[in-house]
Amino acid sequence: MISIRPATRADDDAIWRVLEPTLRAGETYPQPRDISRADALAYWWKPEHSIFVAVDEDDRVVGTYYIKPNSTGPAAHVANCGYMALPEASGRGVGRALCLHSLEEGRRQGYRAIQFNLVIATNARALHLWQACGFEIVGRLPGAFEHPTQGFVDAFVMYQEL
Amino acid sequence: MISIRPATRADDDAIWRVLEPTLRAGETYPQPRDISRADALAYWWKPEHSIFVAVDEDDRVVGTYYIKPNSTGPAAHVANCGYMALPEASGRGVGRALCLHSLEEGRRQGYRAIQFNLVIATNARALHLWQACGFEIVGRLPGAFEHPTQGFVDAFVMYQEL
Repeated sequence: MISIRPATRADDDAIWRVLEPTLRAGETYPQPRDISRADALAYWWKPEHSIFVAVDEDDRVVGTYYIKPNSTGPAAHVANCGYMALPEASGRGVGRALCLHSLEEGRRQGYRAIQFNLVIATNARALHLWQACGFEIVGRLPGAFEHPTQGFVDAFVMYQEL
Repeated sequence: MISIRPATRADDDAIWRVLEPTLRAGETYPQPRDISRADALAYWWKPEHSIFVAVDEDDRVVGTYYIKPNSTGPAAHVANCGYMALPEASGRGVGRALCLHSLEEGRRQGYRAIQFNLVIATNARALHLWQACGFEIVGRLPGAFEHPTQGFVDAFVMYQEL
């Protein structure tokens, strides 16, 4: 059983345990692979981010996501989210639970849509999951991401109206 | 004859004369229409921006653009640009000159592509001009921009490899 609650800075150790393996792999987020714990937490806890954590039945943090405005002024009604799950919790529906929660949270905060700016084309699992959660591919960016082993790969823009 | 040179803070009055009418119209940039001069100049002069101005044969500033990384880390090789021209200089090729200069400047700075994140669908003139300069529409964002008279309108993602 996965439940989701707002994060606090007391979750920082647990959040870093979630972020670190994904950021070190460097295959899905536009951050340097050697990012420090402090820089990663500052990136996750940007002032405009709302942060949530997913906890399992043992109250262990197994995932986290942020939701924020993707732009400003007359485009601030579109949100952007980022999700990360603990690799060893794979297959337990953490990513799906985070994404579905973010759709509700986005509606609650009054957003009209959620946009993903950079879904890496090699990340087939995420692509399928976001599509299963109602997102559509609305754009393709040629060579927009430098993958650590596959070189310059395409990225998708995905979008869902709320 | 339009020529283009790097801007300095001594150009701020002239840059604001270019920015103000476009920002006040609120039809093309994701900024609040009532933005102050200080906030507009801070937006244009963000630390990561390189700023240029277009000057006419009377040495009058008739346009300006910025170029910056559109993302970070393994996606920092894609640039983003914003362009503005003085409305009364319309038809003199200022936008085209700025855009063509930014393609050269992007190559010079080592970018591999330029991406526009939010080209408003109602801005037919810009759409045609960017296409004439080699950009392609690679995505469409439904209702992503709240136009002051037309309500929620679509926006395009445009892209050009350098």
